[in-house]
Amino acid sequence: MSERLPLSAERIQQMLAHSPFIEFLKLEVVSVAPERTEIVMRAPLRPEFERGRGSGQWHGGPIAAIIDTVGDYALVMLLGRPLPTINFRVDYLRPAINTALIATARVRRNGRSVGVVDVDIANEAGILLAIGRASYATA
Amino acid sequence: MSERLPLSAERIQQMLAHSPFIEFLKLEVVSVAPERTEIVMRAPLRPEFERGRGSGQWHGGPIAAIIDTVGDYALVMLLGRPLPTINFRVDYLRPAINTALIATARVRRNGRSVGVVDVDIANEAGILLAIGRASYATA
Amino acid sequence: MSERLPLSAERIQQMLAHSPFIEFLKLEVVSVAPERTEIVMRAPLRPEFERGRGSGQWHGGPIAAIIDTVGDYALVMLLGRPLPTINFRVDYLRPAINTALIATARVRRNGRSVGVVDVDIANEAGILLAIGRASYATA
Amino acid sequence: MSERLPLSAERIQQMLAHSPFIEFLKLEVVSVAPERTEIVMRAPLRPEFERGRGSGQWHGGPIAAIIDTVGDYALVMLLGRPLPTINFRVDYLRPAINTALIATARVRRNGRSVGVVDVDIANEAGILLAIGRASYATA
Repeated sequence: MSERLPLSAERIQQMLAHSPFIEFLKLEVVSVAPERTEIVMRAPLRPEFERGRGSGQWHGGPIAAIIDTVGDYALVMLLGRPLPTINFRVDYLRPAINTALIATARVRRNGRSVGVVDVDIANEAGILLAIGRASYATA
Repeated sequence: MSERLPLSAERIQQMLAHSPFIEFLKLEVVSVAPERTEIVMRAPLRPEFERGRGSGQWHGGPIAAIIDTVGDYALVMLLGRPLPTINFRVDYLRPAINTALIATARVRRNGRSVGVVDVDIANEAGILLAIGRASYATA
Repeated sequence: MSERLPLSAERIQQMLAHSPFIEFLKLEVVSVAPERTEIVMRAPLRPEFERGRGSGQWHGGPIAAIIDTVGDYALVMLLGRPLPTINFRVDYLRPAINTALIATARVRRNGRSVGVVDVDIANEAGILLAIGRASYATA
Repeated sequence: MSERLPLSAERIQQMLAHSPFIEFLKLEVVSVAPERTEIVMRAPLRPEFERGRGSGQWHGGPIAAIIDTVGDYALVMLLGRPLPTINFRVDYLRPAINTALIATARVRRNGRSVGVVDVDIANEAGILLAIGRASYATA
């Protein structure tokens, strides 16, 4: 069965459940805007993601994992299938404390062999906490 | 109480337990070699880290998180305290399937304000699966 | 003599002339918009920057150098002094052929010790050719 | 005419001359060691590459360009043809002053669609000045 493209928020939410790790991240699709190649997801702070015990601060590791995943799904929305990550970079700008994370991914290039996606991570007040840039194999 | 530097494998293993996220990664210090600024850790595959259900394949997210963490501890070994990550890059080279990960981190520069660390991720047979490069604030 | 901040386009154009390499790039300040932390510069194609002889195509090397430099000057505009680059990443999206380059740099974070800047490289028709992300030491 | 692989130092030196930009860098092949996927080149400091006038210090831009180029030729040595850069990262570790640069590039992965290369930049005394990591399209 071929997918109807671009994928809807509902269809993407379904696909997320196929991966135990993504399910563990508890990502929720907030909105899709394929006309500007953008997808927004939300991730709650789990106790397992804390940096220091009782700090309420996200460890950078799950933030990186969210960037990799949400970046991928910006391309999944357009192409209908998950794509292997070639590489990515994350820059940490401010500590993420006592907040869910809002991840906004936007495709900068959807090329024949490589797709490049920018991902901004903000807290619930809209303050930018981290930024990611990822390359995926689209061939 | 000031730490005796460089830190021993036992002391580092203790420190890892202070972070719920690192505890969740179940990282085990395999060896420290401060004279060549190198630390080796091992991480088992947890069910929560699987990419596709039943695939036995690591999702890239936890691999990135392991790179960030083990890279940090190469500097912790020398400096005695955790350091905030400025940014890092991960390149995925081969799928990681049905294997624990062996992470070897080596400090390339321990500067006054910035430390740079390379992290190689191999499977239990020594095949290289992913490589990371990370910058930490040492000031 | 202390600088009046943010720096004007004229003042930045003057400062660019102090560096033989930047002078060689022939960068021209097109506009400054400190209120949105953005600076735009233009670089013409020199014969020395060609990838293949007679191809009219920019080699990636000078594009990377332009990203590093224009990114730095987005922070110079705000802080009044050049800052050492910690590291940067460049992604090449499309070949740059028979065109001057328009570089738009925007500060994503102007922190106490680290500044992070995004740089978009477009051709004269506004098509995105490459993107850069750079960290500078602001301490 | 098909190339005999791996390419010799002489053949690579010839190929470098086809690009006006690479010719401008005055790169000289010092050695090739295809059995460990390594190539070494040397680049002299040109007046046009100075950061501040009369400083004798390399601007970071040409260092980045050298990383991109020498990294590419580590794969050219194995594959016989230039490959487009997907992206690369450079970390600056120490200022490069009054010295030629010695660039050592080693292939970390020569995959079907992506090649990954590490490049170390040292001064003539062997002190590490900058490190690069680059991805190239090999398909």
